[in-house]
Amino acid sequence: MPDKQMNMARAGQAGDGTANRPIMLAIAGDSGTGKTTITAGLVDALGRDRITSIGVDDYHRYDREERKGLPFTPLHPECNYIDIMEQHLQHLALGQPILKPVYDHDTGQLGRPEYVEPREFVIVEGLLPLHTKTSIACFDATVYLNPPEEIRIQWKLSRDTKKRGYTEEQVREDLKKREPESEEFIRPQRARADIVVRFAPIEERGESATDPLSATLLLRPTISHPDLTSILSDDHRQAMHLKLIRDDDGKPVDALHIHSYAEREVTKEVEQAIWDELGLDEPVPDALGRIDPDTRDEPLALTQLILLYHLIQAKQG
Amino acid sequence: MPDKQMNMARAGQAGDGTANRPIMLAIAGDSGTGKTTITAGLVDALGRDRITSIGVDDYHRYDREERKGLPFTPLHPECNYIDIMEQHLQHLALGQPILKPVYDHDTGQLGRPEYVEPREFVIVEGLLPLHTKTSIACFDATVYLNPPEEIRIQWKLSRDTKKRGYTEEQVREDLKKREPESEEFIRPQRARADIVVRFAPIEERGESATDPLSATLLLRPTISHPDLTSILSDDHRQAMHLKLIRDDDGKPVDALHIHSYAEREVTKEVEQAIWDELGLDEPVPDALGRIDPDTRDEPLALTQLILLYHLIQAKQG
Repeated sequence: MPDKQMNMARAGQAGDGTANRPIMLAIAGDSGTGKTTITAGLVDALGRDRITSIGVDDYHRYDREERKGLPFTPLHPECNYIDIMEQHLQHLALGQPILKPVYDHDTGQLGRPEYVEPREFVIVEGLLPLHTKTSIACFDATVYLNPPEEIRIQWKLSRDTKKRGYTEEQVREDLKKREPESEEFIRPQRARADIVVRFAPIEERGESATDPLSATLLLRPTISHPDLTSILSDDHRQAMHLKLIRDDDGKPVDALHIHSYAEREVTKEVEQAIWDELGLDEPVPDALGRIDPDTRDEPLALTQLILLYHLIQAKQG
Repeated sequence: MPDKQMNMARAGQAGDGTANRPIMLAIAGDSGTGKTTITAGLVDALGRDRITSIGVDDYHRYDREERKGLPFTPLHPECNYIDIMEQHLQHLALGQPILKPVYDHDTGQLGRPEYVEPREFVIVEGLLPLHTKTSIACFDATVYLNPPEEIRIQWKLSRDTKKRGYTEEQVREDLKKREPESEEFIRPQRARADIVVRFAPIEERGESATDPLSATLLLRPTISHPDLTSILSDDHRQAMHLKLIRDDDGKPVDALHIHSYAEREVTKEVEQAIWDELGLDEPVPDALGRIDPDTRDEPLALTQLILLYHLIQAKQG
């Protein structure tokens, strides 16, 4: 790997002042859309010495107690230090350290800030990383997680009752309260993402939310994706296919469907072909696709691989 | 006052991009040198709606507990986020908000950061605001407080035993531990200040530390001071005088002596003359010189007035 790292380092030192500029990836999405799961796989794949991940929900302006008397939820920009978030993203994008605020999701309290230095790669996940033009400008690639609402509710219920100590009723009440702000502030970020990821059952096949989920990735031509038209052959068709469609706004976009019943052998071939486009000597990282220590999910693995592709490609310049 | 404020605002909008640039004053000095007392009078004089004051000791990297296992005291740059301090000072100097860390001197703990927006004027006081070239570049005027060590020890003992719950023995132990770092990091800032302030008894007059203190202000020609040669007449000579001297480094500097026995009538005349140079309609602020609610100190008042002069003069451009 050292030769490749050297190649990468040299490419970055092309005299354009970006030698120490980290590659920045945004993962935006509502509460319970899987931001943490996707991020964890990328961090494992690259290694903690090469990648920094931060959550911009740490930029909450009020703690849980203070929010009780306020007319908005944490989804509202007014409930967050958006200007400070922008400021810090700019520092990170320029390779500079920040003193990042810390919000404790368990206690709902704001605590002692922490010093964060950007490494080669920085992942920024949270509710509002794509809220402003300035914040968007800090990223090399942007992702929006867009599962159907019923899937998201199920994921959020499961996490908030198991890990954050809420009752199901509390979570449902909270979701209801947040809905207008989800619509006004979270979902508009979908249109600003280079990649929109949707994990969902394929209804035409009679799949339900409890089946392993397929994924659809909208790949907008705003960044340079791997050339899937040459990678995907008829042999792969049952596992995944690429379709040229018009997005909600009428603009052209590639839709990559990855079926939940994709066979490991087939996806492995596709993964290898995407990975090969990067020209690296190392094998495809095996940390991808992990939902928990014992479960590997092919649509998740391929989604993460495509994000990893963009990180490394951007680094190569 | 509105016309003057308007004048001041217009002067700032001269198209040089500094319209919203606040005027920044640094007050550096060791622990117990009177930074808080001097700052408080300036804040009172200008009003909290026009001036923001921050303490850079909030940039401590470790809390009191963590420091117990470390080989340095809070005076050491390694014990502070100097890079973040520089970053934040630059933001403030450009009129941008910061999310400032908070160190609680009572508990010794680091807590939830606070949002600080610069107003027209910003005072930055603390142990190390003049530690780096970048931090110095953020200021319009810089001050170093330089009382004799025996005065400082007396002030620190008084405050730390009365307000911070330490025993005299603990304070003396602490001072001993800090001495090498005072010498290495704090005192070199004296050479980087536009104004060096020294409150001290005049030994030739047989004064001691318990007498009201006289002040000596070294006014370096690095910024434009009020024209004291034309202000100070023979009538003022008993209360104060200006003397051209060479500083420790051989460079020329004006030394303004303000005697503790200066009569209010005389200092009032000098204060008015300095104030008049600013061309303002308003009277000399009467918040200056307060050591406590009932005690007014003339050397302190004149020191603060000269700092105030620099703040307002810089604002007038």
